[in-house]
Amino acid sequence: MSSCNYELIKDGWFREINDKSFPGQGLELKVEKVLYHSESEFQDILVFQSATYGNVLVLDGIVQATERDEFAYQEMITHIPLYAHRNPRNVLIVGGGDGGVLREVVKHSCVDKATLVEIDESVIKLAQKYLPGMACAFENEKVQIKLQDGFQFLRDVAEKPEQRYDVIITDSSDPEGPAEAFFQKEYFQLLHSALKEDGVVIAQASENVWLNLDYIRDLVASASSVFARAEYCYTTVPTYTSGQLGLIVCTKTENTNLKHAARHPSDGEQSQMRYYNAQMHSASFVLPTWAHQRIYRP
Amino acid sequence: MSSCNYELIKDGWFREINDKSFPGQGLELKVEKVLYHSESEFQDILVFQSATYGNVLVLDGIVQATERDEFAYQEMITHIPLYAHRNPRNVLIVGGGDGGVLREVVKHSCVDKATLVEIDESVIKLAQKYLPGMACAFENEKVQIKLQDGFQFLRDVAEKPEQRYDVIITDSSDPEGPAEAFFQKEYFQLLHSALKEDGVVIAQASENVWLNLDYIRDLVASASSVFARAEYCYTTVPTYTSGQLGLIVCTKTENTNLKHAARHPSDGEQSQMRYYNAQMHSASFVLPTWAHQRIYRP
Repeated sequence: MSSCNYELIKDGWFREINDKSFPGQGLELKVEKVLYHSESEFQDILVFQSATYGNVLVLDGIVQATERDEFAYQEMITHIPLYAHRNPRNVLIVGGGDGGVLREVVKHSCVDKATLVEIDESVIKLAQKYLPGMACAFENEKVQIKLQDGFQFLRDVAEKPEQRYDVIITDSSDPEGPAEAFFQKEYFQLLHSALKEDGVVIAQASENVWLNLDYIRDLVASASSVFARAEYCYTTVPTYTSGQLGLIVCTKTENTNLKHAARHPSDGEQSQMRYYNAQMHSASFVLPTWAHQRIYRP
Repeated sequence: MSSCNYELIKDGWFREINDKSFPGQGLELKVEKVLYHSESEFQDILVFQSATYGNVLVLDGIVQATERDEFAYQEMITHIPLYAHRNPRNVLIVGGGDGGVLREVVKHSCVDKATLVEIDESVIKLAQKYLPGMACAFENEKVQIKLQDGFQFLRDVAEKPEQRYDVIITDSSDPEGPAEAFFQKEYFQLLHSALKEDGVVIAQASENVWLNLDYIRDLVASASSVFARAEYCYTTVPTYTSGQLGLIVCTKTENTNLKHAARHPSDGEQSQMRYYNAQMHSASFVLPTWAHQRIYRP
């Protein structure tokens, strides 16, 4: 590997250790070569070529995506809300500068317009250079990119009912650093204001049932205080700590059943998907008994 | 932590690194104190007290169980075959010396007899000392312990049709070392011979879809060549590499639907289960598209 004094890499291995979010446990990935490291205006960014997971994007010390397993996250955070909606046409992505969610959104033939709001342009540029398989939809004719704060963007939309969205996907980094505000009640209220009456919202929960169940319970309670329905589901990703990541899905109306696909993928759509399918949609909402009870019967 | 020159522990962290089974990735657990380390006649055994996962049992360098998350594995490998069966009375556990599966089996009021065949008595004694929450059913009146090779035990049973089992659970360690033979076709044939006509067999697959999909495909194909049905399902366990572990479930008859619970837990049974529930039973068979296609449409 190239020389690197970045403290998270030692003896040729990247170590994801975080005493606050997941004390006492860690993930290691073998590093072939450091491709990029800097502190942008907003966060610490590391890209390395790993031995067995392809190129890896790390923000503030936490793995965001690897080329080998990124589809599990991108597909589930995108297709769960889009197939839970009967006819999504206008989609907003808050964050998601690596382009992975955008790649999935434009697979839906019914989508006319996909807007991506990313605060940190350097993430987009790095993804285009080092994660080209993810950053492949920025030039798509349906796509609009806004380089600005997602919070402020939503505040502006909330004032203009005609701009509201069918689906909003919050693809933020974890709630320490620039993304902290995405995990609070005010953010759910903004999402609610920016969503059409029959719309669906999804946000990554940054945690999973094994790591911080009480945090998830609080997040679902917070979302439930704003939306008519808020449900927890998850996707499995081997390079996220504990091997899974939670997602929170919400609607404004009681009668939208988020747990089942309202539309099924067409054959053409399904052939482009490696993780999502309609059965997996439903299965991802099924939780172990102890987690279900803690989240839904506090 | 106490002093220890065991090579898998460095700077106070246990590192699970295995270039053969999962090259380029690793799991770390912070060690408070090494409780036990030896090489038994059959394997290298390590027990340590971790910072955040309770006591941890490691065989040949691979985490077998931690007090915090062991129920996810024990419950699923036990309750999937037992609830897929309409009336399991006579249950065999091959391996499982830590006692966790036995603890789950005796929760079923319909089970009359649970036989555990473990080759390595030291695992039982260590579990009784360091994992008492798992090793709590050895004295149960339904339980018989046989300290012998599981393979030979099954060969003997195969000769005596009257001794056949309703459910057989193979709770082995991974297929390097003493458990290697548990992952080959001859073993499935022995299981078939030792099982009643309406019986159900389950074995841990030692891998998951993220790590070694071709190995799983071959294992399912091997089981399918012996049994009328062989299906793959999984459980999530944060301290197993990649966060999940596969299980292979088999029956002799086409008309047993392994994917759904044939009986539901009684209220009394369900109240003792932290992971398993009837919905989770079915969800655990739902696979990501790419994995499903690779396993079932080779």
